[in-house]
Amino acid sequence: MGLPALNNANNEHTSPPEHLRVDEQQLCYSKEPLRDLSHFLVHVEHPLNAEPLLPLLVNAGTITPSDLFFKRNHGPIPNIQLEEHRCAGNRRDGLAQLKEVKGVIWGAGTISTAVWGGPRLRDVLRDIAGIHDNDLVHNYHVAFEADDHVHEDACYGSSIPLRKAMDPLGDVILAYEMNGEPLSRDHGFPLRVIVPGFIGARSVKYLQKIIVQSQESNSYFQQKDYKILPPWVDSHNVDKSWGCAGALGEMNVQCVICTPTEKETILSSRPVVVKGYAISGGGRSIYRVELSVDGGRTWEPVDKIEQAPQKGSGMYWAWALWEKTVSTVNTTTELVARAYDSSGNIQPETPIWNYRGVMNNAWFRVKNVTQMPHHNL
Amino acid sequence: MGLPALNNANNEHTSPPEHLRVDEQQLCYSKEPLRDLSHFLVHVEHPLNAEPLLPLLVNAGTITPSDLFFKRNHGPIPNIQLEEHRCAGNRRDGLAQLKEVKGVIWGAGTISTAVWGGPRLRDVLRDIAGIHDNDLVHNYHVAFEADDHVHEDACYGSSIPLRKAMDPLGDVILAYEMNGEPLSRDHGFPLRVIVPGFIGARSVKYLQKIIVQSQESNSYFQQKDYKILPPWVDSHNVDKSWGCAGALGEMNVQCVICTPTEKETILSSRPVVVKGYAISGGGRSIYRVELSVDGGRTWEPVDKIEQAPQKGSGMYWAWALWEKTVSTVNTTTELVARAYDSSGNIQPETPIWNYRGVMNNAWFRVKNVTQMPHHNL
Repeated sequence: MGLPALNNANNEHTSPPEHLRVDEQQLCYSKEPLRDLSHFLVHVEHPLNAEPLLPLLVNAGTITPSDLFFKRNHGPIPNIQLEEHRCAGNRRDGLAQLKEVKGVIWGAGTISTAVWGGPRLRDVLRDIAGIHDNDLVHNYHVAFEADDHVHEDACYGSSIPLRKAMDPLGDVILAYEMNGEPLSRDHGFPLRVIVPGFIGARSVKYLQKIIVQSQESNSYFQQKDYKILPPWVDSHNVDKSWGCAGALGEMNVQCVICTPTEKETILSSRPVVVKGYAISGGGRSIYRVELSVDGGRTWEPVDKIEQAPQKGSGMYWAWALWEKTVSTVNTTTELVARAYDSSGNIQPETPIWNYRGVMNNAWFRVKNVTQMPHHNL
Repeated sequence: MGLPALNNANNEHTSPPEHLRVDEQQLCYSKEPLRDLSHFLVHVEHPLNAEPLLPLLVNAGTITPSDLFFKRNHGPIPNIQLEEHRCAGNRRDGLAQLKEVKGVIWGAGTISTAVWGGPRLRDVLRDIAGIHDNDLVHNYHVAFEADDHVHEDACYGSSIPLRKAMDPLGDVILAYEMNGEPLSRDHGFPLRVIVPGFIGARSVKYLQKIIVQSQESNSYFQQKDYKILPPWVDSHNVDKSWGCAGALGEMNVQCVICTPTEKETILSSRPVVVKGYAISGGGRSIYRVELSVDGGRTWEPVDKIEQAPQKGSGMYWAWALWEKTVSTVNTTTELVARAYDSSGNIQPETPIWNYRGVMNNAWFRVKNVTQMPHHNL
């Protein structure tokens, strides 16, 4: 198998300096795991970046089966025979419609929810590294390094505030299990970080090193990526502009319609059940989900919404799944969904473009759904 | 002094049931503290509800002097010879323009920042009530009752999650000092709660009782107030709709232009310095502030922004003060400010109306500012 086309338009990252380019042999994709990708929208094959189809995602229920969990990679899967919760680039496609963005043009399926198993990072830092609550210095960070090879840096790396790692209610774990089974290679085998409530980019896979330090990770992925750059920064001035925005941590409030999908034709005259998910970052719960059938002019509550807090901490790390029955849809119907989180944060009506296309949480719209009576043959 | 006109259009709350109406004598305002209100916009005299004028607020600096701190009351000041950080009704005026709202029509000055002194509630609960970190049950709450008389209930009351009270980084205190001096009567003498990052309504003044319980406070102010009711709830159906929304806790992201003000005429031909504040809830920092001079079509970064984290916890409880020099303003100028917080939350372009008019954080607009050369006389 040939070398990855890392510099195409869909490349997730900007070009690294010459001295950081890894040996071409290290980016060999000949030992990737065998995969069935029939239920995925594959954005990039090498490295594999694929999101599950939206209707399958929401119909799979609260916990996403491991084989349907979205797949996000920056290089070949290391052959050392775990996955993020949610990717900051989720819904990047909505920003790409406004102006070119840099990164995999993810849809809204770059989110899944699994049950992860492993020790608390807090306990590891305390029992093995001797770090205690009293050592909580607010400008300290925990950096993670992966045992992999990527194009942009020596390895994939990232960091989180020490405060998040040590928070008794923060639920950061070092996971070796996903949905009750050992991590697969695609999802970070043998060990990965899970940082709930944060963008997936901080849940480093193939974990090799943990460093407590006084600064954020120096990794490309912390310093020059996953930032909401201001709208006046684009490809012409981005190189000198990375310093003007902070690295992302917690997610914002988000709401997505998973079914029906854009331009879908429903072969049934019965009422249509609209289904979707909503989620916020930092353990904040979903306060309310509203649905419009007329493009956002009028709104109604959804019929049902389910979101469970984490046992113990009571924090809301997992998504809320919601549904609402709509009597009929036709060519003039425009479905729009929006959510409020428990801190009163709401979603903007229209997206604000940013160069990296991250954290797009504008109202989610589904147009051109049509309904035709289904005649049994 | 006569009885308060509690049922006028500006009354903050809906009418309570008959059995909760307090004796008229208890709502006597003859013993209010002596006050100089020349720097305030007084919305209601009895009970006193007044916000400082916006230019004075921002020019006073990071810490608001006690005599300029906004004054929020639900009844007479108890004569037992402290103030909230921020009020959920801040900027209610923007929602009142869309449709009638219930409550004091606060502008954007219902926010101030003071230095509060007193023991941590966490330590009090641990050392006096014997509550420990291991007792952190996520559905427990800490209820507060005030030693006062209000129209809506037996006393002012409210609650916060036990999780927030016990959070080592939550910084909830029982304050007896404000800006280095004992609390004044207007601000809660002798003791009040300070719940940073939460709406001011939870920072109960004249504190008389603390109760750890398995449910939220039953107080009117927790159950039938300070909620973002859905847009389809108004005065016609509100009585049966309180249960459909949760009680507010953390604030959302907010940004306000304090100077110049709407329709202000500036007597100087020099560039205009635009100043304002931005803040978010839950200890989240301000990620960026942007200013537009053309009504929101184009945006620029502000020149300067200052926000300090809390010593120890590193959380961002206090506002960010920002400023930007604009070369000139004229009748076509429309100043607009917006902020992003560290969780990627942004403000909506237009407000979404809610009956109680709370948590309005739409882009802040200042129109019709004019500039005239200033000729020294």
